[in-house]
Amino acid sequence: MFSLGNEVKLTVFGSSHGPYIGGTMDGLPAGINIDEEFIQKWLDRRKPGQTIITTQRKEDDLMEIIGGSHNGYTDGSPFTFIFKNKDYIDKHYDDLKANPRPGHADLTMYYKYGEYRNYEGGGFFSGRMTMPLVAAGALAMDIIKKYNIKIVTYIKSAGGITLEESPPDNEDYAYDFKTRMPNKEKDELLYTRILDVIKEGDSLGSVISTKICNVPEGIGEPFFNSIESEISKAMFSIPGLKAIEFGSGFKLGNMKGSQANDEFYIENNKIVTKTNNSGGILGGITNGMPVEFNIAMKPASSIRLPQKTVNIEKMEASEVVVKGRHDPFISYRAVPVIQAMTAFVILDMIMSKRSL
Amino acid sequence: MFSLGNEVKLTVFGSSHGPYIGGTMDGLPAGINIDEEFIQKWLDRRKPGQTIITTQRKEDDLMEIIGGSHNGYTDGSPFTFIFKNKDYIDKHYDDLKANPRPGHADLTMYYKYGEYRNYEGGGFFSGRMTMPLVAAGALAMDIIKKYNIKIVTYIKSAGGITLEESPPDNEDYAYDFKTRMPNKEKDELLYTRILDVIKEGDSLGSVISTKICNVPEGIGEPFFNSIESEISKAMFSIPGLKAIEFGSGFKLGNMKGSQANDEFYIENNKIVTKTNNSGGILGGITNGMPVEFNIAMKPASSIRLPQKTVNIEKMEASEVVVKGRHDPFISYRAVPVIQAMTAFVILDMIMSKRSL
Amino acid sequence: MFSLGNEVKLTVFGSSHGPYIGGTMDGLPAGINIDEEFIQKWLDRRKPGQTIITTQRKEDDLMEIIGGSHNGYTDGSPFTFIFKNKDYIDKHYDDLKANPRPGHADLTMYYKYGEYRNYEGGGFFSGRMTMPLVAAGALAMDIIKKYNIKIVTYIKSAGGITLEESPPDNEDYAYDFKTRMPNKEKDELLYTRILDVIKEGDSLGSVISTKICNVPEGIGEPFFNSIESEISKAMFSIPGLKAIEFGSGFKLGNMKGSQANDEFYIENNKIVTKTNNSGGILGGITNGMPVEFNIAMKPASSIRLPQKTVNIEKMEASEVVVKGRHDPFISYRAVPVIQAMTAFVILDMIMSKRSL
Amino acid sequence: MFSLGNEVKLTVFGSSHGPYIGGTMDGLPAGINIDEEFIQKWLDRRKPGQTIITTQRKEDDLMEIIGGSHNGYTDGSPFTFIFKNKDYIDKHYDDLKANPRPGHADLTMYYKYGEYRNYEGGGFFSGRMTMPLVAAGALAMDIIKKYNIKIVTYIKSAGGITLEESPPDNEDYAYDFKTRMPNKEKDELLYTRILDVIKEGDSLGSVISTKICNVPEGIGEPFFNSIESEISKAMFSIPGLKAIEFGSGFKLGNMKGSQANDEFYIENNKIVTKTNNSGGILGGITNGMPVEFNIAMKPASSIRLPQKTVNIEKMEASEVVVKGRHDPFISYRAVPVIQAMTAFVILDMIMSKRSL
Repeated sequence: MFSLGNEVKLTVFGSSHGPYIGGTMDGLPAGINIDEEFIQKWLDRRKPGQTIITTQRKEDDLMEIIGGSHNGYTDGSPFTFIFKNKDYIDKHYDDLKANPRPGHADLTMYYKYGEYRNYEGGGFFSGRMTMPLVAAGALAMDIIKKYNIKIVTYIKSAGGITLEESPPDNEDYAYDFKTRMPNKEKDELLYTRILDVIKEGDSLGSVISTKICNVPEGIGEPFFNSIESEISKAMFSIPGLKAIEFGSGFKLGNMKGSQANDEFYIENNKIVTKTNNSGGILGGITNGMPVEFNIAMKPASSIRLPQKTVNIEKMEASEVVVKGRHDPFISYRAVPVIQAMTAFVILDMIMSKRSL
Repeated sequence: MFSLGNEVKLTVFGSSHGPYIGGTMDGLPAGINIDEEFIQKWLDRRKPGQTIITTQRKEDDLMEIIGGSHNGYTDGSPFTFIFKNKDYIDKHYDDLKANPRPGHADLTMYYKYGEYRNYEGGGFFSGRMTMPLVAAGALAMDIIKKYNIKIVTYIKSAGGITLEESPPDNEDYAYDFKTRMPNKEKDELLYTRILDVIKEGDSLGSVISTKICNVPEGIGEPFFNSIESEISKAMFSIPGLKAIEFGSGFKLGNMKGSQANDEFYIENNKIVTKTNNSGGILGGITNGMPVEFNIAMKPASSIRLPQKTVNIEKMEASEVVVKGRHDPFISYRAVPVIQAMTAFVILDMIMSKRSL
Repeated sequence: MFSLGNEVKLTVFGSSHGPYIGGTMDGLPAGINIDEEFIQKWLDRRKPGQTIITTQRKEDDLMEIIGGSHNGYTDGSPFTFIFKNKDYIDKHYDDLKANPRPGHADLTMYYKYGEYRNYEGGGFFSGRMTMPLVAAGALAMDIIKKYNIKIVTYIKSAGGITLEESPPDNEDYAYDFKTRMPNKEKDELLYTRILDVIKEGDSLGSVISTKICNVPEGIGEPFFNSIESEISKAMFSIPGLKAIEFGSGFKLGNMKGSQANDEFYIENNKIVTKTNNSGGILGGITNGMPVEFNIAMKPASSIRLPQKTVNIEKMEASEVVVKGRHDPFISYRAVPVIQAMTAFVILDMIMSKRSL
Repeated sequence: MFSLGNEVKLTVFGSSHGPYIGGTMDGLPAGINIDEEFIQKWLDRRKPGQTIITTQRKEDDLMEIIGGSHNGYTDGSPFTFIFKNKDYIDKHYDDLKANPRPGHADLTMYYKYGEYRNYEGGGFFSGRMTMPLVAAGALAMDIIKKYNIKIVTYIKSAGGITLEESPPDNEDYAYDFKTRMPNKEKDELLYTRILDVIKEGDSLGSVISTKICNVPEGIGEPFFNSIESEISKAMFSIPGLKAIEFGSGFKLGNMKGSQANDEFYIENNKIVTKTNNSGGILGGITNGMPVEFNIAMKPASSIRLPQKTVNIEKMEASEVVVKGRHDPFISYRAVPVIQAMTAFVILDMIMSKRSL
């Protein structure tokens, strides 16, 4: 199914080379101000063609609201929006039908849908499908501001370059950097690395960090709707995402309890912890410390270098050269997607609180 | 909510110090053979008191089926089972009510449920709640044998000791080792390390690997019900689990596309890949290669060492010493839980296939 | 699936001739007082063997709580309860396996589950499965008292006898009458009619009326979660229920708009209507008037009279005589079931209100 | 929420006076032929302005597919379609904001959404919202043809005129009649009656019958997903529908078991029943006989006659005269809506069958 969320349900539809891509968000109460400009700002941060290091596909990615809005406020019905697809070139996809790109969903699409697969431009496996995620998440981001929640996402590591320090608690900060790695020097280094990779016809992966500041304590559920369960489920729906860790994550696997446990103490009449190995989550529920997680995004699978593959019609060895446009550093555009999806999940979890 | 699954819904109920813990599994077709002995074998592998390196709580953990079974087969109604709690000692929990254990859900339980929290023995945050997960998952494991699917789980790393090689594709293999790290020498080493940790009054975390062999291709959904989304959601409902990576996981973050993409070739008339960086999943859907993932489990938060905390009633600094029994190496008992949960998810995903 | 509800999910399990019947109610907030005596009172009103006009099966139907309760209050985990089955006599069911009772689910059970059908005593199609509905609904009834909501249910018509007037707005009132038709004279008449029917080896249907008093305005949703949709869905899960109408129901089909529309006026600073043809619901949402509906319950299909049927093994004409105990006027026991289910739905709808 | 269905989920969006109305249908397998002409035929049967006895609002109601389709077949992603609103005249709605129409959702909309209500033209309470129901249902109707299922719906009673006989098992038959009461003489009578009602400025309700022919046996679930539960839930989401009865419905309330039970016998090697009091459903599951049900639709609440109401801003008695266009016999246009929704439910139930 193409839906996410427990209290607020987002359904996405359309495909890369169909007429539209869109989404519908069911379950929002009436009376939420819809700041289209704010949403569009986040969509623009995901848009292709912003810089030489992203794909050069030309799209406006302008959101058109077609439901759920009345005089600028939600009306209690599904908030629904569409985006018109413009710049698609079908001829590049003829080869790919028979010769699945390594690392791409071409093959599994074939396994799942057979002759009926919607393969042009990746169909609904396309990264373009993250556009409705950003629209929904940006609205969520705007809504949770009333709790003063801020979500900070940035490139932590890529191409062998790693940021050691944490950027300020500012959700816009990373966007002032050419690669969204928020450190002047490393940003330049990474930028040069990406330009090299473009010349090579290759692509780069990354590790991306997120910090949710001011998340209220007591959000989340034991077991199946733990904050970790909900965030990871949402994150792994982003194409190319392959790993997630909360707090100290994999490092906890080689720690002792006495090291891993975050000691409690009181500061400004609030219970806080010295360390944040747990990433702000205990028993699946927020403890009032920032929720922190890292994800790993694999390099975009579409590269200009020739790759060995299999012709699935003839069942014989073959080669594929991906023509057309590429995203040498897809992580750049993934940053706002992760931020938006995180906001969506947090909104959904806040709305999951039961009362009578 | 306390439910997991799309086509088959598992709901768990009860708590550590209530009369029962149980589960109900709705959505199974009628006519599935219920092999109680097989299920009990897996429950026994999770049971406390099996060895000196687990908690010494004495429980039979015998499954009693109270619904959904007719003459040894599922009857189409919810497969429902309960376990009687026996060995619980309430007096150990008086201190903990006011002094939350660092790293434990005591504090977030208080935030979420206030005075109504069910805190004795961790209430429903207790690791005992994984018992119904094992029961449901063991049944799933039995069912998916008809697809020849095997799930192999084992301790990959703990206490600074790391297994480099892969064990054989045998789902029982790890259980022949004292620590469930399937290498004679390293098993001994780790065992000694755990005994040390017990003496210290401390606990150990681990990294645990899972490989799903023979999973059919084409299982999983794009986006929100990707194999990664569904497995991670299920995994993060296991207490103490803090990280997950599929295939080469975090390593992909510093790879190039030309390194990360798994080349296709043909072997025995089947399309396979040379490497398995993607962990057998492309676009959220299985590609026929083994699905592989690692998780990190933090060390059990309950340790005998005194820890600094806060008295939440007086809002002042405090100390807590966890009396009673501990699980110095909870990962030992997590192995069958992960295996079972994986089986549950795979069954659910197989049943998600749409047809007319 | 065996689950009902959007915000609060009730799952029922077990079967008539298995060891237990039970239910689990997920989604209740912590801190709700569980008045076991109150719940048991409603269970007793559904219990067999209360009077000569119900089945003589001997059951205690005592609710045992096995989860979700902590010191007498809900703890936020699924409220779970079981009932032990006692008085079942399997030998009566041998005939029925091959010779489905007309009007009963024997045949459709066979179509759906084949050889795996749980047929003894109707399996999970048994009226005994309404026991967990009453338990869950009685708790709901207790909860919604904080809104001052009262649900009044009674036999309106049966055996050719029809009550014209409305009983007082008292949810216990009908239980003072032998047949639960709340009019001294007609109660006697109906009682005699039922005794006749018992002698004949036959059974009686009924029309049952329900009035929900003081339901807050603005409850319900447009379209698919309209009050009518939710109540009817819940009602038709009660075995034997075959019709439902809200307000003037079928009479509206032959009315004009000028007759059907309920005029608004003001009384005690509240908007009320002169008539209540709409049954207190406009556009699926409560308008503050009482919600009123009638249902029709068919006569119990198990009768002592010989009936023509088909032997499904030999595929030839056959006859069935239902031995064992019968419920000549099952509607008597359906009254508290309808009342309880109504409460469950109203609670669920109240909890569906969205806010931030 | 604005979603319906268990295996296939339909979400509707938009509103009467917004730019679009649409729907998205998630869960269909890939490879279903989308016959746009067939779907449009059913949409045209619901369209306003077809005859003098419907509203004269001018709309094309042309379906535009924006997702889920690839080369004329479903592609496994949500089948999504929109309709552009054209002919709306806002000025008629100024009065209604303060003066709710009796029988209409104006008042409850106000209760639920307050100042944020989308009230022009009934917003998303408008009958126009049934358009996506017809689109989804028509596709379902086309799909279930592979089971040879036919759904026959027609006006059974209105304005005091009642059809006694059953029309032929032909899903198009009623559309040859001016009022969709499929009897030449009665059709004329009813037509004349409606013309009178138009002159009076009033409206008419109706009883509408549906027969599902050739529905496979064994479809449906015990309890909460009984055929009756699912059909009634869907039906009551149609604006104005106030009652439903299956088989002999309310008549069963005054029957004896010996009369109500449908005797089984064998015909053409199939088990059939002499009577069909149960409406083809036993224990919530189809028995192979036609599923039959009647619904009552109240007269459209918008009438030209002046009506007493309340000014909700001033909280004082008031009057409302509904200007603009009316639907004097809304049931005419409800016929295809009921037919389509029935198809949707049957498709969903067929897809609910579990297998491994």
